[in-house]
Amino acid sequence: MRLFIVSLVVSALVVGSACSTAADSTFRIAIHGGAGTILRENMTAEQEQAYHDKLSEALQAGYDVLDQGGKSVDAVQAAIIVMEDSPLFNAGKGAVFTHDKNNEMDASIMDGETLDAGAVAGVSTVRNPIKLAAAVKDHSPHVMLSGSGAEEFAVANDLEIVDKDYFKTERRLRQINEVLERENNMTDSGRGADLKLVDEKFGTVGAVALDKFGNLAAATSTGGMTNKRFGRIGDSPIIGAGTYADNESCAISATGHGEFFIRAAVAHDICARSAYLGLSLQEAADAVIMDKLVEMGGGGGIVGVDPHGNVVYSFNTPGMYRGSMGSDGKSETAIYK
Amino acid sequence: MRLFIVSLVVSALVVGSACSTAADSTFRIAIHGGAGTILRENMTAEQEQAYHDKLSEALQAGYDVLDQGGKSVDAVQAAIIVMEDSPLFNAGKGAVFTHDKNNEMDASIMDGETLDAGAVAGVSTVRNPIKLAAAVKDHSPHVMLSGSGAEEFAVANDLEIVDKDYFKTERRLRQINEVLERENNMTDSGRGADLKLVDEKFGTVGAVALDKFGNLAAATSTGGMTNKRFGRIGDSPIIGAGTYADNESCAISATGHGEFFIRAAVAHDICARSAYLGLSLQEAADAVIMDKLVEMGGGGGIVGVDPHGNVVYSFNTPGMYRGSMGSDGKSETAIYK
Repeated sequence: MRLFIVSLVVSALVVGSACSTAADSTFRIAIHGGAGTILRENMTAEQEQAYHDKLSEALQAGYDVLDQGGKSVDAVQAAIIVMEDSPLFNAGKGAVFTHDKNNEMDASIMDGETLDAGAVAGVSTVRNPIKLAAAVKDHSPHVMLSGSGAEEFAVANDLEIVDKDYFKTERRLRQINEVLERENNMTDSGRGADLKLVDEKFGTVGAVALDKFGNLAAATSTGGMTNKRFGRIGDSPIIGAGTYADNESCAISATGHGEFFIRAAVAHDICARSAYLGLSLQEAADAVIMDKLVEMGGGGGIVGVDPHGNVVYSFNTPGMYRGSMGSDGKSETAIYK
Repeated sequence: MRLFIVSLVVSALVVGSACSTAADSTFRIAIHGGAGTILRENMTAEQEQAYHDKLSEALQAGYDVLDQGGKSVDAVQAAIIVMEDSPLFNAGKGAVFTHDKNNEMDASIMDGETLDAGAVAGVSTVRNPIKLAAAVKDHSPHVMLSGSGAEEFAVANDLEIVDKDYFKTERRLRQINEVLERENNMTDSGRGADLKLVDEKFGTVGAVALDKFGNLAAATSTGGMTNKRFGRIGDSPIIGAGTYADNESCAISATGHGEFFIRAAVAHDICARSAYLGLSLQEAADAVIMDKLVEMGGGGGIVGVDPHGNVVYSFNTPGMYRGSMGSDGKSETAIYK
């Protein structure tokens, strides 16, 4: 990581004044692939590389949209599609299993220029839930659709429908089986504690971007929480909790123990603190993620971008898959704190 | 922020020690029964009286909880149950019909002391959706449950299940039939415009309270939007949009065109403006409801209460069924602007 940062500094020095004239066309994308107890000692070099590669591919997809003069709201979608299509992350293919061993996915997207937003909860047959969220934003008078109704809307809007088996992966099946076995061997009090673990049970992908026109956008997609029941909806499809974007303040995508993120209205609260208290985005994000959420007991993190293209990460877990790439030539991916 | 500090100092000086004993037992509840184009010329004296009577009954139910030393979170629930059980309001019995002529209800509740929250979306068989939201808050590790999963949770928690016919009323059936007929006769552009109407199509009940212990709470319940499709979820079950409560700032329950309330994160934004900008709750609410939402084109309103027991109403529609009652002996119900 150190070597990588050095190279970034060099490239910033080299491009020099060229960057300042390009100020109007500053653009940037930042992504996350979930936060949790991601520890170096539990990862092989190959696994690490696979994550870095996929994060870079997702960043490149978003970067290309922005570089070609596309909109931030399309860039975040492009980046998320790459991660939804990869079994590495808990979104789309590779989504975690519910208590009933199904995959029920949630996603949301928001355009900071218009405050237009779209969200879906509990879909099981749509290959890319983020595309469905975008379709809800663009082609529906509603903001949030759920369950079989959302899938009916997907069909009506010609989105790709896949067999439910498409989402199933061996790794996630092993995970739910382990969790169910542990649950069976647990007392009631232990069960409560188990539900507090961010490890293994969560995971989300998300992206935020600033485009050349100064417009912010944010999007989030997830398979939710391993072993979830009763049609549980987490923070990812909740505008204001898992996702928020407003050109006046910031764009945020969150990942973590969703219940806490809903109760703290994390994404909106970070934007509000930055707009109303005059905090930098990093200060605002840390106040919510490192102070408030830690006090509440909620693990997780966010990526964010402000109207000047400053990207921030804030997470109170040992790791968060993350990265950013932009018009200033700076590019990075990282996993650990 | 400066203004806020000044006002605190002043009130501390004025109330001095005399008020400190009374301040401890100050309590108050405020409710709404929906906002919209509620015009005097369209109401008979009997209809007006029926609304005033039912609002008073709901206020009394909440007041009794608070007066007997109960918690604000129980008081808002008690008030809402009265309105859910009445066919006058779009919540519980009397809920509006979906496009498929069903009743799908949403509700949420939040405790400002702990930030604990519970919400349900798309339930069709639970007599009092607000009781289910409270059960989610109290007996589930999750915040938000949806659809048949939420109903399974209701059964597991011994909540009263009723036949779907229980919710159906002649008035709402006439309404959906009229809307469907108009829709059939409309061009596509007209259809979009129709969906912007708050009249007839929306309606929600909600309550906020401050109890003797200084704790705030908010709750909201609705049948959603007439003619809704695709498992649409509005703002009522969204923590931060339709409902928010935080002892540090305020408690808010919203009603109106839910899509706009989600995009503007109305309930949380009002609390954030009051906490971070040092605005009075009325100023914060008006900035969101009368300025921001009007600019966006979103009709509706809120009731709110601050930690000092000040109740505010703010609505950009001709009317909102509303009222409040508290330890200072003040009690009121109102319909028009």
